[in-house]
Amino acid sequence: MNAICQYTVEQYIDELTNFHAHLAPGVLVGGFMVDAAVRRMTAYEFFDAICETSQCLPDAIQILTPCTIGNGWLKIVNTGRFALTLYDKKSGNGVRVSMDASKLDRYPEIKRWFMRLVPKREQDGDALVSEIQEAGNSILSIEAVRVSPAFLVKHVPIPIALCRSCGEAYVEKGSGLCLACEGKAIYI
Amino acid sequence: MNAICQYTVEQYIDELTNFHAHLAPGVLVGGFMVDAAVRRMTAYEFFDAICETSQCLPDAIQILTPCTIGNGWLKIVNTGRFALTLYDKKSGNGVRVSMDASKLDRYPEIKRWFMRLVPKREQDGDALVSEIQEAGNSILSIEAVRVSPAFLVKHVPIPIALCRSCGEAYVEKGSGLCLACEGKAIYI
Repeated sequence: MNAICQYTVEQYIDELTNFHAHLAPGVLVGGFMVDAAVRRMTAYEFFDAICETSQCLPDAIQILTPCTIGNGWLKIVNTGRFALTLYDKKSGNGVRVSMDASKLDRYPEIKRWFMRLVPKREQDGDALVSEIQEAGNSILSIEAVRVSPAFLVKHVPIPIALCRSCGEAYVEKGSGLCLACEGKAIYI
Repeated sequence: MNAICQYTVEQYIDELTNFHAHLAPGVLVGGFMVDAAVRRMTAYEFFDAICETSQCLPDAIQILTPCTIGNGWLKIVNTGRFALTLYDKKSGNGVRVSMDASKLDRYPEIKRWFMRLVPKREQDGDALVSEIQEAGNSILSIEAVRVSPAFLVKHVPIPIALCRSCGEAYVEKGSGLCLACEGKAIYI
């Protein structure tokens, strides 16, 4: 595997190390996952993304596609699984790519890392990165999916109001209070 | 205001347009917000980030700081308010920066956009971008905060298991089922 979307693998490693702040194996595997998905979505001009974990994988999507958390084209729906889906936002048709635990026996370092069989300090980071590059998309499962209509809904703009407790502007959904003043505690 | 962290304003506009896929006013304002926060966090070698909205602002944080969704240093805690906090993950001490609706009267385009007083098609995008650059950090509120201990907890690695329904590897929290098989519906 010599290419991850628009990058060589080496270029992608530079990009991910810069964006993610360190060379995380999950973002490297994620590059092959995004690449596999994007190649199957060429029939669509635009696509949205769902990521089933908040760990590592969202950054691969954000580096390699136009979908980001801030523009709303990437949504995290945590199922605990290391998987992502790209889908057409009109029809919901798309492709889901996941790590396939049944394909890891040839790659002991990947298996140790992915299945959390040993603590991080006992992993061989260089061997792990080499195995991920060697494995490419051979450790993935790829399937056609259709995303639930709940993810296709066009959001209607919600009004902004001033919270009657803290006075700050917030997205008003009916209570007159922002969610912090309703009890979501962030600060002490 | 000629600088947003390591960028000139013009460079930052290029970066955000590339990452966010379009020149969103919220990511431009967000640049000044992140800049204001980072300048007050120089005493700390590292910091984490909390963003109180998923709209636009997370991308400013991801472009300008090492904190991303995928590396876990950026958390979104939705209060409905357009605000971010950078904080020291040991002590919880940090700085919160928010848009201040009471400071917008001098900037009618910003007010129309931020308070959603008119539909998007009736906004003057160029005038809005100009006003945001002129306003810089003069439309922000900046306050010292202390983040709740809940956000300082070091996460203990959770084991990976194979879901007894779908068979996929997932983060096991006790039920034997991944959250998708527990009922979080994504696909039809």
